[in-house]
Amino acid sequence: MDRGRLEAFSDGVIAVAITLLALNLAVKGPPHPPLLEQLREHGWAFGAYLLSFFAIGIIWVNHHTLIKSIALVDRTLLFLNLVLLLFVVLIPFATATVADYMSHGNSWDARVAMMLYAGVLLGMSIGFGAIFEWTLHGERTLQPLPPEAHWPARLRFVGGGSVYAAALVVALFNAYAAFILIALVAVYYIAQRTPTSPAEARGPGDTGGTEVL
Amino acid sequence: MDRGRLEAFSDGVIAVAITLLALNLAVKGPPHPPLLEQLREHGWAFGAYLLSFFAIGIIWVNHHTLIKSIALVDRTLLFLNLVLLLFVVLIPFATATVADYMSHGNSWDARVAMMLYAGVLLGMSIGFGAIFEWTLHGERTLQPLPPEAHWPARLRFVGGGSVYAAALVVALFNAYAAFILIALVAVYYIAQRTPTSPAEARGPGDTGGTEVL
Amino acid sequence: MDRGRLEAFSDGVIAVAITLLALNLAVKGPPHPPLLEQLREHGWAFGAYLLSFFAIGIIWVNHHTLIKSIALVDRTLLFLNLVLLLFVVLIPFATATVADYMSHGNSWDARVAMMLYAGVLLGMSIGFGAIFEWTLHGERTLQPLPPEAHWPARLRFVGGGSVYAAALVVALFNAYAAFILIALVAVYYIAQRTPTSPAEARGPGDTGGTEVL
Amino acid sequence: MDRGRLEAFSDGVIAVAITLLALNLAVKGPPHPPLLEQLREHGWAFGAYLLSFFAIGIIWVNHHTLIKSIALVDRTLLFLNLVLLLFVVLIPFATATVADYMSHGNSWDARVAMMLYAGVLLGMSIGFGAIFEWTLHGERTLQPLPPEAHWPARLRFVGGGSVYAAALVVALFNAYAAFILIALVAVYYIAQRTPTSPAEARGPGDTGGTEVL
Repeated sequence: MDRGRLEAFSDGVIAVAITLLALNLAVKGPPHPPLLEQLREHGWAFGAYLLSFFAIGIIWVNHHTLIKSIALVDRTLLFLNLVLLLFVVLIPFATATVADYMSHGNSWDARVAMMLYAGVLLGMSIGFGAIFEWTLHGERTLQPLPPEAHWPARLRFVGGGSVYAAALVVALFNAYAAFILIALVAVYYIAQRTPTSPAEARGPGDTGGTEVL
Repeated sequence: MDRGRLEAFSDGVIAVAITLLALNLAVKGPPHPPLLEQLREHGWAFGAYLLSFFAIGIIWVNHHTLIKSIALVDRTLLFLNLVLLLFVVLIPFATATVADYMSHGNSWDARVAMMLYAGVLLGMSIGFGAIFEWTLHGERTLQPLPPEAHWPARLRFVGGGSVYAAALVVALFNAYAAFILIALVAVYYIAQRTPTSPAEARGPGDTGGTEVL
Repeated sequence: MDRGRLEAFSDGVIAVAITLLALNLAVKGPPHPPLLEQLREHGWAFGAYLLSFFAIGIIWVNHHTLIKSIALVDRTLLFLNLVLLLFVVLIPFATATVADYMSHGNSWDARVAMMLYAGVLLGMSIGFGAIFEWTLHGERTLQPLPPEAHWPARLRFVGGGSVYAAALVVALFNAYAAFILIALVAVYYIAQRTPTSPAEARGPGDTGGTEVL
Repeated sequence: MDRGRLEAFSDGVIAVAITLLALNLAVKGPPHPPLLEQLREHGWAFGAYLLSFFAIGIIWVNHHTLIKSIALVDRTLLFLNLVLLLFVVLIPFATATVADYMSHGNSWDARVAMMLYAGVLLGMSIGFGAIFEWTLHGERTLQPLPPEAHWPARLRFVGGGSVYAAALVVALFNAYAAFILIALVAVYYIAQRTPTSPAEARGPGDTGGTEVL
C-alpha cells in the first residue's frame, strides 16, 4: 500500500520532534545554583514539555486514524502533509520559547511567546484540517462520508481548531490563561478516548474524534 | 496489521532518544585541558551513557515482545504507549544530569540527580506496566493469559519495577549505591536472556521475561 | 520487497534532517532583547527554514516517486542513495549558515554562505540525478523508459538542476537574488503538483515530474 | 516477518547517528572571523564528516545484507545488535572529537582523539562480527554457510576488522596516517561494490562482502 511511506516519513518527523522537546530541560551543571533550585525554576519548562508532548501525541493518534482511512495518495496529499509537518517541527522551538519566558511572570514577552505557541498549534490544526477537507472529496477514502455529513464534520473541526485561535487572542492579555486553555483541550481529548467499538474505530465517522484539534 | 504504526512510531522515538544519549559525551576542544584528562573526567558520563543505553535497549526488547502479542490496537493503548514514551524521552535529560553531578562526589546535588534518574526509570516501568495490565483484559492478545496467572504475572512485574523504587529511596542517602542497584538490574536482565524455546518466545508467558523492569 | 529498507533508512535520514532545521530558530531567552525584536531579527532564519523545509520535502516526494518504480536494489543504488543523503544531511548546516549571515546585508560573507547553500542543493540534485540515470539502464525499473525517451528525460533533469547551478553563480554577486531564484524553484514545483491521473502517477513517465530539481 | 522491527529500530538509530554528524560543522556566525576562513579551518571537520558518513553508510549496507539472510530473531541477536548500535551511536561524538583536535597538528591530543575514533570503529566492527558469528550456528540463516566455509569467512572478517585495530596502533604515532588508513578502507569498500549476480547477492556467501569491516 502506497500510504505506507507517507506514514513512515510522518512518524519519523513526529518522533524526532517529540524527542527534541526534552532537550530544553537541560540544567546547567555543578558550578551553578543547587540542582533542586534549578529544577524548581524549570517548572514551566516541565509543564510546557508535558503539554507539547501530548499535543504532538494527539496529532499523531489523529493522523494515524485519518491516514488509515485513505484509499489514494496523490501529490496534493503529500504536500498538505508537508504543511502539517512544517508546524509540527516548529513545536519544540515554540515550546522552548514559552518555557523560557513563562517563568518570568505575565510580561509582554511571555504573552508574545504564548501567542507564538498558540499560533504554531493553530497552524498545525489548520494543516490537519486541510488534509481532512481533502479526504471529503473524490474517491479518496475507503468509506467516503456521505455529502450531508460534510458540514457537521467540518463544524466539529472548526470548533476544535478555534480553541487554539481563542488561545491566541487570550494570550494577548494573559499568557497563563492561554496555557490553561490549551491544556484543557489536551485533557478533554485524552479523557474522551473511551474505547470505541471496532466498527466506529475503523469507519470514517471516527475522524469526527479529531474535532478537538 | 494496525499495530505496525504503533511499533514504527515507538521505534522512532526510542531510536532518537537512545542516539541523543551520546550528545552529552562531547568534550570542550583544543584550548581546554588535555583530551585524556577530559575523557577521564567524563568517566561518569560514559558510565551513565552505558547504563541508559541498555535501560532503553531492554525496554525496546520488552516493548517488541509485548506489542507483537497484541491483537487489537485501541485509543487507550495508544495513550498508554504515549505515557511510556513520555518517560523514555526524559532519559537523555536525566542521564545528562546524573553524569554532570556524579563526578563531584556524593553531594546532595548528586543524590537529587540520582533520584531524578531513578524516578524517570520508575515512571517508564510504570508506563510499561500499564500497557501490560491493559493486555490482561478483554480479547486484546493473541493468546490471552488465563485469569489465574494474572496475579503471579503482576507480582513479578511489581517485583521488577520495585528495584527502581528502591533505587529512588537509596539515592536519598547514596547516589553511587543507587547507580549500582540500577546497573545490577540491567546486568541481570541481559544475563538471563538465554535462548528461550520458540513456544515460550511467542506465548504470553514470555512477557514474564519483563519482570526485571 | 527489498526496497522497503532503502526507503525506511532514507525516510529516517530525511525526517531527522527536516526536523533539525528548526533547531536554528532558538531565541536567547529573558535577559536578552525583547522577544518580538529577536523574532524580527530571525526573519531570515524563518525564511531559510521555510525554503529548506520545502526543498527537503520536494526531494522526499521525488525520492518516493522514483524509488517505488524500481524493480531491483543493488549495492550501486545503495551507494548512490548514500551520496544523495550526504547532501541532505548537510542542508540543516547550510541553512543555519545562510540564516546567520543573510541578516547582515549583502556582504561577502552572506554571498559565501549563499554559495555554500546553493552548492549543497546542487550536490543533492546531482545525487538524485545519478539515481535517475541508474534507473535508465538494465532491467532496473518496473516499466523501463524507452531508449528514445532517455535524452529528453535527461535534458529536463539538467534543466532543473541547472537552476541551482545558476543560483551558485548569482550568489557570487547577490545573495538575495540567489535566495529568490531557489525559492522560485520550490514555488514552481509545488504549484505544478496538479493531480495527475493514476496511470501517470505510477508510470515511469512520472519521474519527469522531478525535472525542477 | 519478525526481523522487520529489528531492521526498523536499527535503521532509526543509524539514520539519527548519520544525521547528527553534521551538527559539528556549525560555524560561529557574524561577529567572528570571515566565513571562508572559518570554513577553511573546518577542513578536518568536513573530512571527518565525510569519512564517518561513509563508515556508517557501509555498516548500514552490510547490516542490511546480513539481517535479510536471517531466519530467526531471538533475544541474543537483539542484544548483539544493541552492542553494535552502542558503537554506532558513539561515532558522532568520536567524529566531533577528531575534527576538533586534528586541525591543530599531530599533537598528543590529536593522537588520543584518533585512537578514540579508531577504537569506536573497531568496537563497531567487533559488534558486527559478533552478529556474523551468531549467524554461523544453528538454523539461524535462510541458507546456512557449510561448516567448512566458516573459518575462511571468519578470517576474511578478522582481516577487515584488523585494519581498524592497525589504525588504533598507528594513531599512537601519527594521527594523519591512521586517518588515511581508515579512509582507504572506506574507499576500497565502495570501489569493490561492483554489481554482484543476484544469486551471490542473496546467498550467505554475500556476507563475505563485509570482510573490509
